[in-house]
Amino acid sequence: MPTAPLDALKHPCPERIALITDFGPGPYVGQLQLLASAQAPALPLINLVADLPAFRPDLAAYWLPALIRRMPDGTLYLCVVDPGVGGARAALALRIGSNWFVGPDNGLFVPLLRRCEAVVGNNAADYALWRIDWRPEQLSESFHGRDVFLPIALTLTQGRLPLPCQRCMPDQMQGADWPLTSACILYVDHYGNLITGLEADEADPDHSLCIETPVGSQSIQAARTFCEVPEGTAFWYRNAFDLVEIAANQRRADQLFGVSAGDGVAWAARAY
Amino acid sequence: MPTAPLDALKHPCPERIALITDFGPGPYVGQLQLLASAQAPALPLINLVADLPAFRPDLAAYWLPALIRRMPDGTLYLCVVDPGVGGARAALALRIGSNWFVGPDNGLFVPLLRRCEAVVGNNAADYALWRIDWRPEQLSESFHGRDVFLPIALTLTQGRLPLPCQRCMPDQMQGADWPLTSACILYVDHYGNLITGLEADEADPDHSLCIETPVGSQSIQAARTFCEVPEGTAFWYRNAFDLVEIAANQRRADQLFGVSAGDGVAWAARAY
Amino acid sequence: MPTAPLDALKHPCPERIALITDFGPGPYVGQLQLLASAQAPALPLINLVADLPAFRPDLAAYWLPALIRRMPDGTLYLCVVDPGVGGARAALALRIGSNWFVGPDNGLFVPLLRRCEAVVGNNAADYALWRIDWRPEQLSESFHGRDVFLPIALTLTQGRLPLPCQRCMPDQMQGADWPLTSACILYVDHYGNLITGLEADEADPDHSLCIETPVGSQSIQAARTFCEVPEGTAFWYRNAFDLVEIAANQRRADQLFGVSAGDGVAWAARAY
Repeated sequence: MPTAPLDALKHPCPERIALITDFGPGPYVGQLQLLASAQAPALPLINLVADLPAFRPDLAAYWLPALIRRMPDGTLYLCVVDPGVGGARAALALRIGSNWFVGPDNGLFVPLLRRCEAVVGNNAADYALWRIDWRPEQLSESFHGRDVFLPIALTLTQGRLPLPCQRCMPDQMQGADWPLTSACILYVDHYGNLITGLEADEADPDHSLCIETPVGSQSIQAARTFCEVPEGTAFWYRNAFDLVEIAANQRRADQLFGVSAGDGVAWAARAY
Repeated sequence: MPTAPLDALKHPCPERIALITDFGPGPYVGQLQLLASAQAPALPLINLVADLPAFRPDLAAYWLPALIRRMPDGTLYLCVVDPGVGGARAALALRIGSNWFVGPDNGLFVPLLRRCEAVVGNNAADYALWRIDWRPEQLSESFHGRDVFLPIALTLTQGRLPLPCQRCMPDQMQGADWPLTSACILYVDHYGNLITGLEADEADPDHSLCIETPVGSQSIQAARTFCEVPEGTAFWYRNAFDLVEIAANQRRADQLFGVSAGDGVAWAARAY
Repeated sequence: MPTAPLDALKHPCPERIALITDFGPGPYVGQLQLLASAQAPALPLINLVADLPAFRPDLAAYWLPALIRRMPDGTLYLCVVDPGVGGARAALALRIGSNWFVGPDNGLFVPLLRRCEAVVGNNAADYALWRIDWRPEQLSESFHGRDVFLPIALTLTQGRLPLPCQRCMPDQMQGADWPLTSACILYVDHYGNLITGLEADEADPDHSLCIETPVGSQSIQAARTFCEVPEGTAFWYRNAFDLVEIAANQRRADQLFGVSAGDGVAWAARAY
């Protein structure tokens, strides 16, 4: 593919790729790993998460800033939750500090970039955003993770930008008008815990959290961790991603409440 | 183990191993990776797919040619879907061009080799097939992926053939009489899409595809991709493996039709 | 972190890390892999098994000795099944021969160490056990695999012990009074096979195995392997880990009997 050099001094090449997808356990992650192994044998490619809720970039987008929070700098995150695959949506490459993000222009990077801007101030934030218009000769209709986004990512790890591409502004991204926070369940983990889009730093431990269930609204109080509540009791707490998470001690919270990813949550009045 | 050298000039050693199995998410893939990591630390071992339908080499066999279609040359595919493990079935090593295939003699490589012969003509196809009679001293009854096929694969990556072994002809393989194409669902992917054994190159977009469901036969028309049909609508299309796949826009086709891997499909008359 | 050197001559550093967890398919394994990739790029980190029954160290503990039986020496096993995370339970580092084990002090290493002592005699067994009191500055309440156990493991692979730590005796471990063998189902594998805690070396093929099911007790006889019994028939056999496993030829034994991990099994009188 035609490429242009990045300013290598200012932006060192990413040292590894981490996959963030809704590809599931099938062959899609494996095909990316096999291709990358042949084309960039020395580059680590880590399957960070592959079971994001399918077809839901709106959920993945709000988890992304937290998912990478304690992860190593110098990582390129290849993010593919892409229900619009095969349509007209563009491909984006985003650099924030020494990290890179490659994926579809469907809102996936909006909360991440807005949060970065909110933290450091709009003008000072160290980021750059490109729309990549390059397309491969052989392009499937349904697997742009393999045919478009992986080649873009591998090119960036070599310090080059695929051509044609153009710099663009955050306001030009799809989903640019999305809110900064999502008051809903982003992901149900393997233990049945409910990871929400609420930031723990912005939560008051004296407040209870309300969740809509098939049998009415339930109010959940805070606890520090699992062993502080009786077995089977639900609580909310600051999870390992610094998000508000609803769990139950040695029980599945998703089954306890009959809820799933995408369902809403809300802060209640102060717990009494 | 006793070994004999391959003709290294004509057949360069495979540069990586890719696993194609029905082992699922448990410890079986992990044990292969751990053993390979100790015995061949520099050799990449990629878990290409581990959730093939269990006990169904007849389904895996027809996906194999498509699954590897756009994958890098110089790969050894370790293929284990092996309901006859512990019985008398032989182990095979197959070279086609610069790729290698190791697995049980239960039909798994029949469509792959027949398709290769069909494409280039029986006499010209660049392949070689061996039956490997070597067995390890310590052999479990149920995990030949670890005890037989992995050691064979690692030996081949070192440019050697395990002994005893013997060259054999494609007609001597189990399943040698299987048809060239399988008109059924080979795999239901993570999104509920139905991957069939029908080749997209041999499909006419004006024809509709029939699928038998619990409530009768359903007729499905072609579309280019997901966003070309209304949400919830089913269609068939050329998937990323160049096979005919049945999907529904943002819905699970397997649940829509109540079907699963192994169920049949058939071309209908021209769509009207 | 502050560290002290291990006696490198007597105890060569582990050459790879293998993960044994109940983390499931989500982001927890991926975060460990991403951190390890940045902090120890040359060190292989293998996801040996991630779907152990959640919250059940009592089941994981009895599988551990068999799971690692034919695996390569020089491996550090990072074992995290940890319902007490965030509570007061300690972290352990255990060396047995050239292998290492890092994880919570909740019984996980008790059968392993007792079996090792039973085999070689209490005084002669080549092991060393430490309680690691080091804690990181940034410690989540729910993901000590990432925040505590991985840093300990990476430090050990560099030939150093995290400080503070203290040598301790096996009798001081939680679960020190657990029995040597567990007569129950430890794990249901991807095929629906039931892996029990019974050692095959201690089993008599003439005895049948009893399993409690929702419709009463069932008696199961031994067979060598799958293809020796009719399709759909259940049998017990020596599995690839040298444990007693209940399976059914091309059918799921878990569904056949309506049982799951944690359910009990027992030897019956001699089969007649």
